[in-house]
Amino acid sequence: MSSLNQMRINQQRLWDSHVQMAEIGALPLGGSCRLSLSKDDKKGRDLFVKWCREAGCDIRVDQMGCIYARRPGRDNALPPAATGSHLDTQPHGGKYDGIYGVLAGLEVIRTLNDHNIETEAPVEVVVWTNEEGVRFSPPLTGSQVFCGRIPLERAHALETIDGSTVRDDLKKIGYLGEDINGQNYPMACFIETHIEQGPILEQANQQIGVVTMIQGATASTVRVKGVDNHAGTTPLSMRQDALVGAARMVSRLNEIGLENDEATRVTVGRFDVYPNSTSSIPGEVFFHIDLRHPEQATLDRLDAQFRKEVSDIAGELNLEVAYEPMMAIAPTPFDEKVVGVVNQVTEMLGYPYRRMISGAGHDAMNMAVVAPTAMIFVPCEGGISHNEAEAAKPEDLAAGANVLLHALMKYSGIAD
Amino acid sequence: MSSLNQMRINQQRLWDSHVQMAEIGALPLGGSCRLSLSKDDKKGRDLFVKWCREAGCDIRVDQMGCIYARRPGRDNALPPAATGSHLDTQPHGGKYDGIYGVLAGLEVIRTLNDHNIETEAPVEVVVWTNEEGVRFSPPLTGSQVFCGRIPLERAHALETIDGSTVRDDLKKIGYLGEDINGQNYPMACFIETHIEQGPILEQANQQIGVVTMIQGATASTVRVKGVDNHAGTTPLSMRQDALVGAARMVSRLNEIGLENDEATRVTVGRFDVYPNSTSSIPGEVFFHIDLRHPEQATLDRLDAQFRKEVSDIAGELNLEVAYEPMMAIAPTPFDEKVVGVVNQVTEMLGYPYRRMISGAGHDAMNMAVVAPTAMIFVPCEGGISHNEAEAAKPEDLAAGANVLLHALMKYSGIAD
Repeated sequence: MSSLNQMRINQQRLWDSHVQMAEIGALPLGGSCRLSLSKDDKKGRDLFVKWCREAGCDIRVDQMGCIYARRPGRDNALPPAATGSHLDTQPHGGKYDGIYGVLAGLEVIRTLNDHNIETEAPVEVVVWTNEEGVRFSPPLTGSQVFCGRIPLERAHALETIDGSTVRDDLKKIGYLGEDINGQNYPMACFIETHIEQGPILEQANQQIGVVTMIQGATASTVRVKGVDNHAGTTPLSMRQDALVGAARMVSRLNEIGLENDEATRVTVGRFDVYPNSTSSIPGEVFFHIDLRHPEQATLDRLDAQFRKEVSDIAGELNLEVAYEPMMAIAPTPFDEKVVGVVNQVTEMLGYPYRRMISGAGHDAMNMAVVAPTAMIFVPCEGGISHNEAEAAKPEDLAAGANVLLHALMKYSGIAD
Repeated sequence: MSSLNQMRINQQRLWDSHVQMAEIGALPLGGSCRLSLSKDDKKGRDLFVKWCREAGCDIRVDQMGCIYARRPGRDNALPPAATGSHLDTQPHGGKYDGIYGVLAGLEVIRTLNDHNIETEAPVEVVVWTNEEGVRFSPPLTGSQVFCGRIPLERAHALETIDGSTVRDDLKKIGYLGEDINGQNYPMACFIETHIEQGPILEQANQQIGVVTMIQGATASTVRVKGVDNHAGTTPLSMRQDALVGAARMVSRLNEIGLENDEATRVTVGRFDVYPNSTSSIPGEVFFHIDLRHPEQATLDRLDAQFRKEVSDIAGELNLEVAYEPMMAIAPTPFDEKVVGVVNQVTEMLGYPYRRMISGAGHDAMNMAVVAPTAMIFVPCEGGISHNEAEAAKPEDLAAGANVLLHALMKYSGIAD
């Protein structure tokens, strides 16, 4: 076993694969744009499929366009040790978000080939369709269908931003497969590698995040209504200024977040003012609250507190307010055993690491419903993601892929 | 004189003129859209000119398209007793803003005709071009050229929103006159009637506002820069959230306004958030501060205080901030004698009134530079203006026109 423990993936080859993939839909500042089911998404998929075939994989595509690249094992009736992520990007996406999880899987297969290792069970890399949710919503569509959260028919009928349907676009790019997504598809494990998309590993100078869960999230919208009036003529004491009210709400939500434990994430990301004219008192503000926390009880408590504070502030300022829940995702704990294997392998490899939660949603969140699942994080520069400036170090990407290699070897078994 | 004191304008005729004018560019909710130098502005001007000719007026049009409708006096070498306002509207404008000041003048002329009164000096109604500044900026263009604040050539070269120039559009609608705007044009007085566009008269149950001045104004822009990042992954304590900073600034500016005297008007009307995406921490906010007050010293003091507070808040939250002055208009006092005449006539007529300042800018602000000027306000419902819902009562419009009638009779003198 000790020679197996010394196996490492090829850092340069993994890096080169990122560089080549990023050339498809390349953007001027170093990022890529491969919106799901677009022409460039097709090109990215084609390149991945070509690489996998060259590595001896069997390719299957399901009716959602999800790609399953399988390196056969000795006993192909066994459930595969699976990994994967997505190749689609944000409009100004980076080179690593999603792509790393796919290419690390490919690199594991290439490394097993380099060492002529036959596994007992197959090893499989999955490309999930539409993780980003840019051209059609909801995001994470492929894995949501896989785990049964969305029926296939509904996903097929989703309209893309340009007016066609998902089914039409799958056909158009040649990725409408025949397999029924998610049906009779047991996996020994699903382990997704991903850049952290946050600053914690970088600031702590750690190379691996052993991800124990994905935190829960709620989204709510707030509509504040006042009276739109002339800025020059209306005395301050007679105003019903929706922006003054909404500003006070945003400050208060941030204070509440800071008063709570440090796992709390409260963000007002979208904030629209009407009529948004320099000499008019704003009559209406619409904003969106994104709340995340690992514990459901805390999500519920904070959501109730937000609702009350928003209502109190509106009352003080003689404004109307509507607070509407939009989305609630419960915290997703990962499989203790798979997390344990990832943790053990990381220690064996000697990388500085921490156990941590994922702040963002990932396909692994859906896979956790149907398979023993975990994630591996690596640092990214400044925690920046969904941005062309997204950056990761070759050695960190390699470290995560090495953890993946050894975890997948454990789950696929060595046939000897 | 007592029979002259009993003269009143024709309330129904004044009302009907508003109704007819509002049919040009009529909007579904009761307002009108006659953007300056548009086809509908031409139609509104044509109707006014037709009415004035029918009332025996001479019409002159200057090179800025301003219309001077003159009811001759006994001695036409004397400077006219002048009134007027504008016929152009906001995109969703009301029936009264500007229009009232023009139609009240016409109604005064018609009333003088009804009573066969010959005045010593001429009485003149002016329609100023582009008060609203929608199709081209700056607003109040006609009166700004008249008083010498903008050279005619510059005003002619202004580009309209649809890409032509003011001069082209004046020609196109047939209102490029030959008279040089503002040159050798003494007036005995310029008295503009207008709806208040604020709630003060209505709330005090008063019918006339004797306007003593137009308050001063400054406009500034604030650009707050933080770091755009992922809402789910970035701990609150590591964020540089531009919206949290800008929200605190808006709250603080409002507090400062409320702490100051009741004449203070502070408004953040425009407020833009970037990237304005539900799951992104806002990296940048741009907003606009509109500050108005009757005293220059207070404007200067508050502006300095705003700049300091905005900078302090940015410092506390690790944000960059740029505070830029955009515009500064000094307070405009009206002519004491004309204000006195308006006050005296209002008392003679027995209308409940108050002396007040104008919160909004008007053509009278420019006329005050070159002629003895004042304004007469009447209430409007809820103080609402720049809105199709703009409403005024026939009896209040009549009251303002009666004050105008008697003030203009004082300034034109009754012949023999």
